[in-house]
Amino acid sequence: MKYTHNNNELNHKHIGQTVYLKGWAAKVRNLGGLIFIDLRDRFGITQLVILPSNKNYDTALKIRNEYVIEAQGKVIERESKNLNMSTGEIEVEVSELVILNTAETPPISITNDTDALEDTRLKYRYLDLRRPVMQQFMMKRHHITQAIRSVLVQEGFYELETPILGKSTPEGARDFLVPSRLYPGQFYALPQSPQIYKQLFMVAGMEKYFQIARCFRDEDLRADRQLEFTQIDIEASFVDQNDVMSTVEKVLIHTFKEVLNVDVTPNFPKITYQESMEKYGNDKPDMRYEMLIQDYTDFFKRHEVPLFQGKSQVRGILCDQAATLTRKRLDALTELVKKNHGEALAFIKKQEGVYSGSIAKYLKDECLAKLNIQEGQMLFLVPGEFEKVSSGLSALRIELAQEFKMIPENTYKFVWVVDWPLLEYSEEEGRYYAKHHPFTAPVDPEVLKNDPKNAMAKAYDIVLNGYEIGGGSIRIHNQEVQKLMFDTLGLSKEDIETRFGFFVDALKYGTPPHGGLALGLDRVVMLMTNTTNIKDVVAFPKTQSARDTMMQAPSAVDDLQLKELEIKVGR
Amino acid sequence: MKYTHNNNELNHKHIGQTVYLKGWAAKVRNLGGLIFIDLRDRFGITQLVILPSNKNYDTALKIRNEYVIEAQGKVIERESKNLNMSTGEIEVEVSELVILNTAETPPISITNDTDALEDTRLKYRYLDLRRPVMQQFMMKRHHITQAIRSVLVQEGFYELETPILGKSTPEGARDFLVPSRLYPGQFYALPQSPQIYKQLFMVAGMEKYFQIARCFRDEDLRADRQLEFTQIDIEASFVDQNDVMSTVEKVLIHTFKEVLNVDVTPNFPKITYQESMEKYGNDKPDMRYEMLIQDYTDFFKRHEVPLFQGKSQVRGILCDQAATLTRKRLDALTELVKKNHGEALAFIKKQEGVYSGSIAKYLKDECLAKLNIQEGQMLFLVPGEFEKVSSGLSALRIELAQEFKMIPENTYKFVWVVDWPLLEYSEEEGRYYAKHHPFTAPVDPEVLKNDPKNAMAKAYDIVLNGYEIGGGSIRIHNQEVQKLMFDTLGLSKEDIETRFGFFVDALKYGTPPHGGLALGLDRVVMLMTNTTNIKDVVAFPKTQSARDTMMQAPSAVDDLQLKELEIKVGR
Repeated sequence: MKYTHNNNELNHKHIGQTVYLKGWAAKVRNLGGLIFIDLRDRFGITQLVILPSNKNYDTALKIRNEYVIEAQGKVIERESKNLNMSTGEIEVEVSELVILNTAETPPISITNDTDALEDTRLKYRYLDLRRPVMQQFMMKRHHITQAIRSVLVQEGFYELETPILGKSTPEGARDFLVPSRLYPGQFYALPQSPQIYKQLFMVAGMEKYFQIARCFRDEDLRADRQLEFTQIDIEASFVDQNDVMSTVEKVLIHTFKEVLNVDVTPNFPKITYQESMEKYGNDKPDMRYEMLIQDYTDFFKRHEVPLFQGKSQVRGILCDQAATLTRKRLDALTELVKKNHGEALAFIKKQEGVYSGSIAKYLKDECLAKLNIQEGQMLFLVPGEFEKVSSGLSALRIELAQEFKMIPENTYKFVWVVDWPLLEYSEEEGRYYAKHHPFTAPVDPEVLKNDPKNAMAKAYDIVLNGYEIGGGSIRIHNQEVQKLMFDTLGLSKEDIETRFGFFVDALKYGTPPHGGLALGLDRVVMLMTNTTNIKDVVAFPKTQSARDTMMQAPSAVDDLQLKELEIKVGR
Repeated sequence: MKYTHNNNELNHKHIGQTVYLKGWAAKVRNLGGLIFIDLRDRFGITQLVILPSNKNYDTALKIRNEYVIEAQGKVIERESKNLNMSTGEIEVEVSELVILNTAETPPISITNDTDALEDTRLKYRYLDLRRPVMQQFMMKRHHITQAIRSVLVQEGFYELETPILGKSTPEGARDFLVPSRLYPGQFYALPQSPQIYKQLFMVAGMEKYFQIARCFRDEDLRADRQLEFTQIDIEASFVDQNDVMSTVEKVLIHTFKEVLNVDVTPNFPKITYQESMEKYGNDKPDMRYEMLIQDYTDFFKRHEVPLFQGKSQVRGILCDQAATLTRKRLDALTELVKKNHGEALAFIKKQEGVYSGSIAKYLKDECLAKLNIQEGQMLFLVPGEFEKVSSGLSALRIELAQEFKMIPENTYKFVWVVDWPLLEYSEEEGRYYAKHHPFTAPVDPEVLKNDPKNAMAKAYDIVLNGYEIGGGSIRIHNQEVQKLMFDTLGLSKEDIETRFGFFVDALKYGTPPHGGLALGLDRVVMLMTNTTNIKDVVAFPKTQSARDTMMQAPSAVDDLQLKELEIKVGR
């Protein structure tokens, strides 16, 4: 290429050099005959200046924002330097100037700050992505992907591909289906994850596999979900839980150093699922701040409060500064707790040495003193069953931490959540479900057999700043245990045969012990770029209502196409 | 991990060391009480020996082929060395031995040579892939992928992802469709390539993009085709044809050096489309051998042969050694030429100084002498129209080269095919089609406007050993030229609007000049691993009849699923 520099490169060292640049006109100013153009590329901006005496002056006069141009010229010192930008010491006095393409006024402005609605941004995504902040997101995504991959390659993992056109497993009701033209009435399904394939790679003796894999789930979208997403899918043979965890730590430590220059210490803390539920109210604890949930059940067994009578548990959190919260704010917090399945929210606060709050009146001062509420603090209490109390307090804790700015910025706290239950019992359907998936190994197959409710799993989740960024497990590699698992989940022999027959078969030909983990790439990138909207880190996302508004997909198709597939639209 | 070595690592330097190994029992022999086990992992084989005095001897007696085991022991010198294997100097005298998993006798043998039918191999793909030769294919695929990526990253390309759930473009009738649950009657489509997205990345100012992209085409399968395939998708802004070609050459040169230790010289030869058709009869010339097609039209205008009368062209190839071909073989070659659209095949050969063959009798010896047929050679001639003659001779040339072993082994001849026509005219439908795709830039838009038949394209294909491994072009970046192109292709204003409206729109906001190329990864890997079956380099391929016979996909699905999607099966 004939161009000599990117637009972030020139500084006082280049003064006097002749350079050849290209890019977009980010800003054009005409100051008393001198034309200044901020020339932008994906790296930065260089200021061009065109003198009235220039033979291309007429060309320069035509240039508007977002015109694509190339220019040759000499680097000169700038009169008024801008030390906020890398090229702020110099400008380029243009000799040759060519317009490569013109531009109409774009419907959104190509600047970091935009007041454009998300709908407009997605419709004109190709312009939205031209904004420097969005280009940074894409560039970071690229760098993060390379950093992750480099560790895995280094560690001897093979990057291998698995099919997108797979088989539908009715278990996962949220499969996208693809009608087959050659087999009318039959369908392929897009993978919700390459789980079975990666285990088959282990059966096949590949030993260490990874893939940056596209996965699909036909779910209703949330702010941090998309119909398709990318996961770093990892699997290894002859490993135990610690081997997998240590590999994943290496990946994350290297990536954070490489991309953010952040040092993360190995041997991430571990917390059991049970402890996480008790202290944080959820299975993805945010460790950046304290304010843990405490158990007041025993206390309130000794000290009667009407609201708590007959409740199996009373737990709560003690929050600094919260004594100043208004009645209105407390009502809102109560609503929040209830929306999150908490039965009720009670408070006791201490201000100027005096206790007050919804239930203070039921307790004597010497009792209240035992609660250790300090000046300015508020104790929030939720009564009820363990799960519901946890859920309510979890939401409350996060809300209070944000309200009182307890969350330090640019801090990355990883934690492993371990010791998961293997199964979940659905009272409604009277059957067990796999807490992770039906291939997760039990800690003890005997317990699975005799006391499934209490069976524990060799499973582990990796959590960053309150987000689950990955999860994995050691898998079942024994055919009998796999059958027992399917059995416990209530699958009939026939079900097992038609759905997973080949897989159970595969296990009997010398399957090594194996396990792995999958990291959610989109979420990792989101957290590493400090955005809260997953769409910011996906180049061409779907809207909240699952549409591509730029291309207009999904869309109706030709009748002929449907005829060929032998399907008809309609109930 | 507790294991100390892979199974290809130990040699005489390790004698005396205690090692810890794991893997599969590839072969078990009991020789006068001593048990020998070939322990296999993905890297190689190490021989274990278990003495009758060993406390684990009973365990060892249980071990059958494909059992998964781990063993601790001491490296000792082997009595009868096997210098064909890297670990052939030593064996490991086992102290500790554990069976990690048992194995039934596999339905195919886990050896490089297999007489299993392809159907069986695909059904038990997880065992087929365990064969060392298949593991090598997968490992090479991994290495090739890494090598290609490393050059592109080095060259400043961002690896960016594009959606799999896209929009159906009726142009490409071979789209796979995905019914939308949220918008009954509407469909997403799987991409045949990320063409539009990669151009939008250029509009978005990403400047250099690549992706190792999964693509989908609902076509009838051939030996070197799959429903889904992977392409190295590359696009860059501010480039011309030479920039793209030089980047691709860098990628290929590095990859061949890195993976095969083969030196490829830069500045690959170029041949025009026209010259390729004339000399090789096709647009993917195999440059590993000569035997070019020659034009005898003028000669046979001067010398009358009944078979050639009234034919617009007579072209042929002169083949060494071919004078010895039998009548039967010549009949078969005639069939081959006819199957490939050639009208007829005529021969003249010279044996012991005498000319003979189907048309020799019509020509005098002094005429025949002018044809320069040497002793033992045969001249094959095909009359008719240019395209049909080319097609017939192309097939014949390839067949003869194989028959007479003219193709040197382990030779890699790259060639660029350039100067393509922009359009193809379909007499049947009375309209033009884009030879590459409708986004390819014409060399001169004026010619496209006034004389479309003769418009040339800024397109280029990269060919290796007679296989097209990639193709690309400089794209149209001017809105008016893009409209002209759609116009010439006979798309109505309405068609353009509904299919490509947003894209034509996108071009008007400052689109840089850009171009790119896509390499077919599966095909590159196939050629680099010297296999002729694309299934060998795809981990989980579909059969020729588009089925996954291991998982049984495609398959029928629950009525409930179809109901939710509001589609019905049937015409």
